[in-house]
Amino acid sequence: MSSQANISASDRFSLITRDLDEVLGADIIKAILEKEERPLSAYWGTAPTGRPHVGYLVPLTKIADFLRAGVEVKILLADIHAFLDNLKAPIELVRHRVNYYRHVLTAVFKAIGVPTDRLIFVVGSSYQLTEAYNMDNYRLCASVTEHDAKKAGAEVVKQVASPLLSGLLYPGLQALDEQYLGVDMQFGGVDQRKIFTFAEQYLPKLGYKKRAHLMNAMVPGLKGSKMSSSDNSSKIDFLDTPKEVSKKIADAVCAPGEVEGNGVLGFARAVLFPIARLRVESEAMGTPVSEAQGASKSFVAPDAPKGSMFSIVRPEKYGGSLHYSDYPSLEKDYASGAVHPADLKKAVAEAITTLLEPVQTLFEKDAEFKKAKEDAYPEDTPVVKKKEKKINPRFAHLYTKEEGGTAETEEKALANQKAEEEKKAAAKAAKRQQQVTLPADKEEVQPTDKENETFVEAARAGVENVHLEKK
Amino acid sequence: MSSQANISASDRFSLITRDLDEVLGADIIKAILEKEERPLSAYWGTAPTGRPHVGYLVPLTKIADFLRAGVEVKILLADIHAFLDNLKAPIELVRHRVNYYRHVLTAVFKAIGVPTDRLIFVVGSSYQLTEAYNMDNYRLCASVTEHDAKKAGAEVVKQVASPLLSGLLYPGLQALDEQYLGVDMQFGGVDQRKIFTFAEQYLPKLGYKKRAHLMNAMVPGLKGSKMSSSDNSSKIDFLDTPKEVSKKIADAVCAPGEVEGNGVLGFARAVLFPIARLRVESEAMGTPVSEAQGASKSFVAPDAPKGSMFSIVRPEKYGGSLHYSDYPSLEKDYASGAVHPADLKKAVAEAITTLLEPVQTLFEKDAEFKKAKEDAYPEDTPVVKKKEKKINPRFAHLYTKEEGGTAETEEKALANQKAEEEKKAAAKAAKRQQQVTLPADKEEVQPTDKENETFVEAARAGVENVHLEKK
Repeated sequence: MSSQANISASDRFSLITRDLDEVLGADIIKAILEKEERPLSAYWGTAPTGRPHVGYLVPLTKIADFLRAGVEVKILLADIHAFLDNLKAPIELVRHRVNYYRHVLTAVFKAIGVPTDRLIFVVGSSYQLTEAYNMDNYRLCASVTEHDAKKAGAEVVKQVASPLLSGLLYPGLQALDEQYLGVDMQFGGVDQRKIFTFAEQYLPKLGYKKRAHLMNAMVPGLKGSKMSSSDNSSKIDFLDTPKEVSKKIADAVCAPGEVEGNGVLGFARAVLFPIARLRVESEAMGTPVSEAQGASKSFVAPDAPKGSMFSIVRPEKYGGSLHYSDYPSLEKDYASGAVHPADLKKAVAEAITTLLEPVQTLFEKDAEFKKAKEDAYPEDTPVVKKKEKKINPRFAHLYTKEEGGTAETEEKALANQKAEEEKKAAAKAAKRQQQVTLPADKEEVQPTDKENETFVEAARAGVENVHLEKK
Repeated sequence: MSSQANISASDRFSLITRDLDEVLGADIIKAILEKEERPLSAYWGTAPTGRPHVGYLVPLTKIADFLRAGVEVKILLADIHAFLDNLKAPIELVRHRVNYYRHVLTAVFKAIGVPTDRLIFVVGSSYQLTEAYNMDNYRLCASVTEHDAKKAGAEVVKQVASPLLSGLLYPGLQALDEQYLGVDMQFGGVDQRKIFTFAEQYLPKLGYKKRAHLMNAMVPGLKGSKMSSSDNSSKIDFLDTPKEVSKKIADAVCAPGEVEGNGVLGFARAVLFPIARLRVESEAMGTPVSEAQGASKSFVAPDAPKGSMFSIVRPEKYGGSLHYSDYPSLEKDYASGAVHPADLKKAVAEAITTLLEPVQTLFEKDAEFKKAKEDAYPEDTPVVKKKEKKINPRFAHLYTKEEGGTAETEEKALANQKAEEEKKAAAKAAKRQQQVTLPADKEEVQPTDKENETFVEAARAGVENVHLEKK
């Protein structure tokens, strides 16, 4: 399916902005769409600090609308930010996680069934360490007050007793990213609002144009709060088995008849229905989503009427199956008690499993995808075989044949060990006589900035900006 | 005179640290001096924001001790900081000022009579925009709390109601400079103390070694407060005439018998006596300061006894001339009233004029030095000739011959002007009919980051790191 499908400018605008909580700079978007000279360009950023989970489907589902509307979508994999987030994590790991994120996110868009020919991954370190970018960072810091920087990050930067200086830099860097990625708009959760208005205020002061900002509503996590990659119990991994998915959904917040703060309903509204709607729309436009091209199966039962988006399959004795062609009808039935939490949970778990299936199929087939995961999360990969202890031939006489050495008996091995120790002690004493070190002779050794070089090199050698399936 | 003069390690240490207010990390310095494997390396930084004045002689006089002791001295000309200090100043100007500072400072060391073969100028932009430096800046910002950064800059960064973010970055950048300049110690006024201890605390956290820090006491300006490059009335420029010097010294704070806060006495103590002492010491070591190599004349009268450093020449009727071989004797005489403010001012003005003489001689002889000043301070250079107004040949018929045009009479010129205007109006109307612009067709033009590129290029093309008179 091509993103060049013939959709009018106003239809594209509707597709791009639907379901959003807020749009700033709609005129910027409209002007470019109406001019039709080039594709609209958007950016969404994520720091590959942990491991992507189904909570990521909330922004990705909205991004699917962008891709469907022919928008060029740049996904910034902010490796430097991820590295700074936890300076103790090895640099190599961040590089591998960047790679894994790229694989997972691409697979998800394929599963949703939207074109990925205008999906571009950009690794932060590919431009965030350049002279021009850093000069602009300095210029920005010489224009922005501490107060404004603090205010901009208030909702996104962790508010702690002793905040780090980096927290004040991030809003400015995120503003510069819009310029350096060369996009027309930035997309994010509505928690980014202050960062977005900060960018609108300050980019023009550097002589750069103001960008549009599109904001998703915040969605309650399955446990009722925002899903976090560090909260293992609530997150559903993209590689979780159907059983694991069911178990985690079973544990989710889903009070009978209650809509507010219901993580399962929220997920259906923000992820499952929009994905199903894209499928229905594609079909209506004569460009149906294709399972052969990696899209998932639909979330509806085979006997559902045409146009259905979501099915709750249950025996006749419990009221029979239900089929929904929009979310509000489901919410109404849930609020009235016509749909029981157990019914909803089962249907949502099945839909998630359905969506994850092609992602996992791709993972199993694609050796690079598998390797990316192993490298990115080595602790998850069981160590298959421990290396056997190898004995240096020079010391083989210190061990018995049973131990892999050459000594005929235990006694001989012990005698050899004693002789070796005496030899060592004598050599040490001789050396001590040769050199008498004065304290003043000891100079502190200058540490190399090896670690730093390694990062820069790793980042460069690592995932380059990849334009997928460019035609 | 070579900096390799045979001075013992402990004598070098005394020379390097004498007169200082505070030394942190003396053991670091001693260890390197005693090892004698390589020269000790020091750094002092200045942002070429304005124009250097004789207030700069306070740090330069101490740096002269370093050079005399064989220390490799790196003077950081912080062009990026200067640019950020006033974003409205054209970038080109900063580049020219860097160049002028280099000329002036070199001339001053020659005038003092110390070797300059280990004097190295480093332009900040030569390394402060590199990937490695910026990665370290990010790493530092992710380790430093806002609180610590603020505390470090408290005495140096302007304390205003709405402080800029850049003020929080500077302490970290100054710490990184120690690493990237590859020095063993940093020198500055004691107002830098918190920045220095900040560097000692944080560089090791990045895996870099802790440096030594040498601090000069603060010296009262000639007007009683610290001399600033923006306060034109009190500053004595290195190119001021003897008359201008006398006038400015005459206006200086110098209450009879008062030592505290006396700018003229302070200048004698911090600049004139140390410079004179270097001369006396050089003579004693058999390597006299050479006027042929650009050094100034001495500050003593021809009839002064050997070892004198400073003379107050006055007629017998006012008590006759006085010659001092150390500063405390002068201070004592001034406090007792034996030396009158007018006597002191006259002698100090003459000493300054004596010191500036070879600087100004070099300026007059060196076309590049002159050009550097013209480019750096164009407002000081009188515009010699205004360009005459040139008339475009196409419009020559609109002007009389007297005005430089071709019309024979005033009437003909006016008639031609009227005809031209009618032609223009008709063309405009025709154009208006051809194109009807819809508001939606107007797209905001993306500004180039030309300005930024220009800076980076300018900085690169500009003054490179110069190692003077490398042998």
